[in-house]
Amino acid sequence: MNSENASISERIVSPSYIRQGCQARRTHEQLIRLLLEKGKCPEDGWDESTIELFLHELAIMDSNNFLGNCGVGEREGRVFSSLVARRHYRLIHGIGRSGDIAAIQPKAAGSSLLNRITNSVVLDMLKIAGVKTVSSCFVVPMATGMSLTLCFLTLRQKRPTGKYIIWPRIDQKSCFKSMITAGFEPVVIENLLEGDELRTDVQSIEAKLKNLVPDRLEELAMICDKYGIPHIVNNAYGVQSSKCMHLIQQGARIGRIDAFVQSLDKNFMVPVGGAIIAGFNESFVQEISRMYPGRASASPSLDVLITLLSMGSKGYRKLLQERKDTYTYLAEELKTLAEAHGERLLKTTHNPISLAMSLQGIDQQNDKAVTLLGSMLFTRQVSGARVVPLGNEQTVSGHVFKGFMSHATEYPCPYLNAAAAIGITKQDVDLCIKRLDKCLKNIKKGQTDQSEKLETESENPAVISEDTLNEMLLLLKSGTELLSACKKYQVMSCFS
Amino acid sequence: MNSENASISERIVSPSYIRQGCQARRTHEQLIRLLLEKGKCPEDGWDESTIELFLHELAIMDSNNFLGNCGVGEREGRVFSSLVARRHYRLIHGIGRSGDIAAIQPKAAGSSLLNRITNSVVLDMLKIAGVKTVSSCFVVPMATGMSLTLCFLTLRQKRPTGKYIIWPRIDQKSCFKSMITAGFEPVVIENLLEGDELRTDVQSIEAKLKNLVPDRLEELAMICDKYGIPHIVNNAYGVQSSKCMHLIQQGARIGRIDAFVQSLDKNFMVPVGGAIIAGFNESFVQEISRMYPGRASASPSLDVLITLLSMGSKGYRKLLQERKDTYTYLAEELKTLAEAHGERLLKTTHNPISLAMSLQGIDQQNDKAVTLLGSMLFTRQVSGARVVPLGNEQTVSGHVFKGFMSHATEYPCPYLNAAAAIGITKQDVDLCIKRLDKCLKNIKKGQTDQSEKLETESENPAVISEDTLNEMLLLLKSGTELLSACKKYQVMSCFS
Amino acid sequence: MNSENASISERIVSPSYIRQGCQARRTHEQLIRLLLEKGKCPEDGWDESTIELFLHELAIMDSNNFLGNCGVGEREGRVFSSLVARRHYRLIHGIGRSGDIAAIQPKAAGSSLLNRITNSVVLDMLKIAGVKTVSSCFVVPMATGMSLTLCFLTLRQKRPTGKYIIWPRIDQKSCFKSMITAGFEPVVIENLLEGDELRTDVQSIEAKLKNLVPDRLEELAMICDKYGIPHIVNNAYGVQSSKCMHLIQQGARIGRIDAFVQSLDKNFMVPVGGAIIAGFNESFVQEISRMYPGRASASPSLDVLITLLSMGSKGYRKLLQERKDTYTYLAEELKTLAEAHGERLLKTTHNPISLAMSLQGIDQQNDKAVTLLGSMLFTRQVSGARVVPLGNEQTVSGHVFKGFMSHATEYPCPYLNAAAAIGITKQDVDLCIKRLDKCLKNIKKGQTDQSEKLETESENPAVISEDTLNEMLLLLKSGTELLSACKKYQVMSCFS
Amino acid sequence: MNSENASISERIVSPSYIRQGCQARRTHEQLIRLLLEKGKCPEDGWDESTIELFLHELAIMDSNNFLGNCGVGEREGRVFSSLVARRHYRLIHGIGRSGDIAAIQPKAAGSSLLNRITNSVVLDMLKIAGVKTVSSCFVVPMATGMSLTLCFLTLRQKRPTGKYIIWPRIDQKSCFKSMITAGFEPVVIENLLEGDELRTDVQSIEAKLKNLVPDRLEELAMICDKYGIPHIVNNAYGVQSSKCMHLIQQGARIGRIDAFVQSLDKNFMVPVGGAIIAGFNESFVQEISRMYPGRASASPSLDVLITLLSMGSKGYRKLLQERKDTYTYLAEELKTLAEAHGERLLKTTHNPISLAMSLQGIDQQNDKAVTLLGSMLFTRQVSGARVVPLGNEQTVSGHVFKGFMSHATEYPCPYLNAAAAIGITKQDVDLCIKRLDKCLKNIKKGQTDQSEKLETESENPAVISEDTLNEMLLLLKSGTELLSACKKYQVMSCFS
Repeated sequence: MNSENASISERIVSPSYIRQGCQARRTHEQLIRLLLEKGKCPEDGWDESTIELFLHELAIMDSNNFLGNCGVGEREGRVFSSLVARRHYRLIHGIGRSGDIAAIQPKAAGSSLLNRITNSVVLDMLKIAGVKTVSSCFVVPMATGMSLTLCFLTLRQKRPTGKYIIWPRIDQKSCFKSMITAGFEPVVIENLLEGDELRTDVQSIEAKLKNLVPDRLEELAMICDKYGIPHIVNNAYGVQSSKCMHLIQQGARIGRIDAFVQSLDKNFMVPVGGAIIAGFNESFVQEISRMYPGRASASPSLDVLITLLSMGSKGYRKLLQERKDTYTYLAEELKTLAEAHGERLLKTTHNPISLAMSLQGIDQQNDKAVTLLGSMLFTRQVSGARVVPLGNEQTVSGHVFKGFMSHATEYPCPYLNAAAAIGITKQDVDLCIKRLDKCLKNIKKGQTDQSEKLETESENPAVISEDTLNEMLLLLKSGTELLSACKKYQVMSCFS
Repeated sequence: MNSENASISERIVSPSYIRQGCQARRTHEQLIRLLLEKGKCPEDGWDESTIELFLHELAIMDSNNFLGNCGVGEREGRVFSSLVARRHYRLIHGIGRSGDIAAIQPKAAGSSLLNRITNSVVLDMLKIAGVKTVSSCFVVPMATGMSLTLCFLTLRQKRPTGKYIIWPRIDQKSCFKSMITAGFEPVVIENLLEGDELRTDVQSIEAKLKNLVPDRLEELAMICDKYGIPHIVNNAYGVQSSKCMHLIQQGARIGRIDAFVQSLDKNFMVPVGGAIIAGFNESFVQEISRMYPGRASASPSLDVLITLLSMGSKGYRKLLQERKDTYTYLAEELKTLAEAHGERLLKTTHNPISLAMSLQGIDQQNDKAVTLLGSMLFTRQVSGARVVPLGNEQTVSGHVFKGFMSHATEYPCPYLNAAAAIGITKQDVDLCIKRLDKCLKNIKKGQTDQSEKLETESENPAVISEDTLNEMLLLLKSGTELLSACKKYQVMSCFS
Repeated sequence: MNSENASISERIVSPSYIRQGCQARRTHEQLIRLLLEKGKCPEDGWDESTIELFLHELAIMDSNNFLGNCGVGEREGRVFSSLVARRHYRLIHGIGRSGDIAAIQPKAAGSSLLNRITNSVVLDMLKIAGVKTVSSCFVVPMATGMSLTLCFLTLRQKRPTGKYIIWPRIDQKSCFKSMITAGFEPVVIENLLEGDELRTDVQSIEAKLKNLVPDRLEELAMICDKYGIPHIVNNAYGVQSSKCMHLIQQGARIGRIDAFVQSLDKNFMVPVGGAIIAGFNESFVQEISRMYPGRASASPSLDVLITLLSMGSKGYRKLLQERKDTYTYLAEELKTLAEAHGERLLKTTHNPISLAMSLQGIDQQNDKAVTLLGSMLFTRQVSGARVVPLGNEQTVSGHVFKGFMSHATEYPCPYLNAAAAIGITKQDVDLCIKRLDKCLKNIKKGQTDQSEKLETESENPAVISEDTLNEMLLLLKSGTELLSACKKYQVMSCFS
Repeated sequence: MNSENASISERIVSPSYIRQGCQARRTHEQLIRLLLEKGKCPEDGWDESTIELFLHELAIMDSNNFLGNCGVGEREGRVFSSLVARRHYRLIHGIGRSGDIAAIQPKAAGSSLLNRITNSVVLDMLKIAGVKTVSSCFVVPMATGMSLTLCFLTLRQKRPTGKYIIWPRIDQKSCFKSMITAGFEPVVIENLLEGDELRTDVQSIEAKLKNLVPDRLEELAMICDKYGIPHIVNNAYGVQSSKCMHLIQQGARIGRIDAFVQSLDKNFMVPVGGAIIAGFNESFVQEISRMYPGRASASPSLDVLITLLSMGSKGYRKLLQERKDTYTYLAEELKTLAEAHGERLLKTTHNPISLAMSLQGIDQQNDKAVTLLGSMLFTRQVSGARVVPLGNEQTVSGHVFKGFMSHATEYPCPYLNAAAAIGITKQDVDLCIKRLDKCLKNIKKGQTDQSEKLETESENPAVISEDTLNEMLLLLKSGTELLSACKKYQVMSCFS
């Protein structure tokens, strides 16, 4: 309520009450002022009332909500369904402009503000999460894979002769396809097994580099000298792990990282559909944003802004800590369960999010048992727990992967994978362990439902749910190790 | 309410009332059954109550809403903010799967159904709008430009040696950038002026083809013989015009169209952010959908599904008719106004959506007057009316365009553009004409605010609002003319 | 957005766009200013965006939404469920205060404003609807019956010796009970039949008066001389009829009306639950509002305010006109149908809302046929059409009513009643006539489902749906006739 | 999704996923089944998704949501504004029927179910809260005071000659007015001071009884013998205190309680506007519900149902425990603060919700200081903390109360009152103590803003905020003591 309306109100309701009401309004406005001024996530989360007030204020600045507007263009933000208008808070114009997804849209001052502030707040969160020197980022309404493709397409513009991307193997289709879609040829580097853990084969990368480009070494050296070699990190769900973020921070300090791409939904508890493209060189990040042709959906920006304003940086820190604690708890519980069944918790100390237990015993009992277990867990509403049998073979975009889903041609044993991702609760762990225990017992006793077996054979839902892999961690690990190598050899994950 | 709960309810409330209530429920379910069975847009729009019931039913089939679910993966559809969950109807998992944006997501049966049904309903609408033989389409949560890029990237996979896209000039950045981003080189074909109208220079295209590829003619012929040459149509806002849709239909019958891409928001009155990629060959459309790496936002699908169910096919037909009528009305009003000011309505009979009036007089009076007019209209909340001065020069991705925004190097006069797009009302036209009249009078009298002039010089908002161009129509016109040529020469808009 | 935040925003997004956004905001604020200043319903309805902005502004002025508030009382507006908070727009404190439902609540400046403005806007609507000299009213969150009770209780305070209310018979339980609940004894005046129509028996009222109070005539005269005798009008759904409103206006001018009570839901298309108590003497209306002990729900106020702001006075006038037109249409259709079935439309020219057709024929055919028809209509989802058989007898609060539902001891024929109330559409009429025709034909052919008969006998839903009576009109007619009598005899509908 | 639609869906999305989705649906339905079957509050709160599904299911059973309905009555549940429809979940028909607020409404099976279930769940909660033998209750959409009035009006019907209500003094206007409005004459019994605490003067009640009805003693005895004497308890916010509920339970066991009335908002964290009328004799409670003339708003029922389903009985128990703990904490903090300022915490051990500290010192310093303190707390957004100066005199409905707000003619010292009501947090206490400390210091130093003084004099907002009194407790205390007396003398709080 502006001061004019407030003073009219004072004639209707006692002035002192109205004045107190207006003072209360100012505390909301003060929060908004701080946000606009600092461009940072508030420490304490806002309540829904402030958030909605803010969004409402933004919406009425967009031309589709002007009371006196007349529109005679092709894109006037007209919405047929009030359900749709409402669910978008009447912010209809999307973000960006023909030229640039980060540009200001003349028809939509409010949406433009939303876009700018979101990018600014998200940048602040990346710093808080551990990458302190990140200089620029933007939210892009595409999932991680397509966002990686956009990065690669930007690199192609800059390095028109580039053909290859050196890619330490990660069995996740999106990641692989992001290179194919961009028109590059992935050079797959198989991982090395150290104990239970797969690690990036840095030496192999060096060898491959020499092998691939023997006669272009001079040229390569010149390019490297002038521009360095681009390095794109697929940081899919790494924001939630301080370890991952630290690796990126270090990588950028010691070596070179051009951009790192992270999923919005995997890290910030919002619906699927957006990613953050971030980097240390503002102009390169801008180049990527300018590569996006046309305006785009504001939906992921809106989701992440609402969410971050709700949680506040304190809230996010608390979630990160809880995740860490649950990870430890999951590890203990899984270890106990594994040992009770004659299996073991695999030692994967470099992976701060995912854990695995071997499935040696039931595999020896029955060669279908591992996939059956996956199916049983699916039926029992344990989602995200993935079984990895031996000997899976999968062709992705024409490339054959042996041992698909295990990230290795020949992993020594089948295993079951579970992750402690942001938002997981102790209760999730308890339920999972309890149901898993029951399934394992039933399999051992041979007490499994025939129908489940059939389903398993035809569909294998849990088995092929490849988007729950621990891919990013492996890539990241390679990342750091690569980076130490980079200093010597200018190796890159993204090589063109 | 299932039958068990209904019969318990009969003990609480009189059986005959409960029975009537359940019968009423069945009429909602019947509508849902028809939708699922036919996969078509209902003729009469659904009311909000049925739509929300349906969405609610879908949502509880997704694992993030299972009451007994325990999630131990990285992507469990957890949402922090209830504002966000609510605005997405708790459909959090997005659409698609690592491998394919059109694939079924095991964790989300409801979202998967939503995705399939949306694509099916949208396909039905494309048929209704005039492209009767379209065989496949999918909604992609990216704006038109990025969707075109995805089509081009798919073509690149199929034709790895392709380099060029023959592109009849359209002054819209997104369209141009979609080719650049995909890594192609646009071959710009300037338009021919016939009367007031710009038309595609088909002969020039032929010449360019011979010129570009003289020594590869044999090869080209062979390729053409075997595969034909791909033709992608940027049908940005053409769904709303039966003429445009007819041209595509004819084009596909006589010649060849591989895919046509249209904006969701420009044609279906939903927020910015989605597009439809459609074609006549199902397997090619599938290939495109498989090129999208990873899952994606369900938000545009949700918007368009809600909208189409609300309007029904009857409602859409009514909107199309109203648009046509308003176009005629706008033409009459603009003609009258133009003549009153000594200008004229440009004769652009091939353009069924946009209209233009010359701005010869005020331009001769003062060389800043045209851009000033744009600025004045912006300030007066006339959005979408775009002024096109002479001699604008713009560099897009390194390419210089003379006469930018006029789609021609030297258009004979400056003009003002207005469009009758879907959802426009007679009231919009009246307000626009009234304000425009006032602005023109003020300019002639020299009564313009100094501050407006300043703004004009520094920002030119209306002038540079390039997303309100009539681009698509020109492209489409080229399309048909090209197609008649195609029979002879196998020319293409997208040449690789 | 206040000016400080706007100027910070100008640093983020181009100043001219922000300025335009702020200007657009001012147009919303201007609407709010007009509302506050004039306290009248806007002529043009507001759009949802302005309404929600306004409600949001009100809500943040309530102490439960103060960001820095600490509450240590028993009633702090804390709400557990966010669903509940949201659906009340976070306006939790209700209206009024211990002392007075119309009083200002110190903890809730926003809710208090809402209350005042609602009462003011509703007063304006009563004037527009025809009672031009109404001086005061308030929305009370109780249905019509309970609101009448509150009026009677207020009268009791003023006239502690009053015992009787003279009540021209209307077969509606709420109306009758409102007197009983207030502790009065209704003196039932049976109606006179004039043609098809029942009219208040004014002479009988006079006789009753003399009869009841022979020995107190002197006293009565004295009281009448000094205070007049109170007259309360149950104007249940009369606001929607200009005729009814005119009668009240005239009544107050010529005679005396202390208060008139109308339903919110029946007249303003809001959910059941509120009423308006209005009058011509401000201090008496205030006395009633002060009789309500304690605070009360703001929900009906909120509903009617949202609704009136949405429709605007223009919108309401349009609805009134449409209702009138549909009434005429219903009369014609019902007449045609009646004649086709050998029945007739009853001539009830004084009733501007309800119509009736005789059911003579089918009643003679079968004595259960009339109630069966009611049941059949219920099953076929014709709601509100009420059949009135002969000879119904009902006991209400100990009083026996012969011919219950027909408002008369012996109405000459059974009939079917239908009303053209606000919001009815031509389509409603068409469907009703079509289904009614079918039912009548089936009954004549004896083709009725046995199960329907059984239901009829046990439950008779349509038959006993007594809240759809045309009670108010009869009462009102009595009203005016009484009023003309009042000039002579000081008769009253509410006599104490 | 019914089984037919599910099996069609299996053709669109893999059968096993659809089957899992349907199984998930059944878990929601199972919860609904349990609710319908048991009529009890679920132990674990439901999530919003189940609640909304349930409400949606109810809504589509109401005739206003029938897709094929045609309405020709006056009350068809038509709603103009979609904002209003939405906020009521499209449940528009209210509850009850002309005859009875608890009756089933033929047009609204869903709303009727809602009403029945709400009353049943609320009854369960009253048992859980401590009144184990309560046999009947209903939610009435009126605040506590008006609900008390309805009880008294029911008693009047049963005891037409009753005139008086014996009323142990409580300085709350609503409570007092509820008797006046019902047309009774309150017989005020002043309280006795025992230590710091006011207690009901039971002997005085006995004396008054003899005094009032000396010559009707025989008659009284006969009435008492046959019917007993009615006793209505104003249990305003007592549900949240196990002590209060225990007293009622005991009272009903040893003596007689006809009905006890409690506020919905004060006990269940919902918006102001509803109350629960409960009792031990089902037929008497039904009589009250039948006294309500007409249908009524479903809004308070909807609010409390949503809330109870959200919290579950576990959640409510947790809130009760937290309240108790915060009460203890508040007592400690207030004691410390009081002593630091030379004041003391009043010893009121029988009051389990409210606490008071003396304001002796500042009162002696300056006779305006106490009211000034109230004003300062208001300005500093401490709501609910009430100061009680000496010597206040107030006239309510013609009765003069000396020492108003202190519940006594001459309380020995002025004091400040604070309550630990349900939903209060430790943070509320901390903020309140901190601000109170500051205010007390400023007053002692004489450092108070002149403007605050002025406001204080003119408005005294905190001072007159009488709805935050600890009334109920005093009444209840009287209650039990009365009840022990009742065994001997058949005394009553409500005497007619």
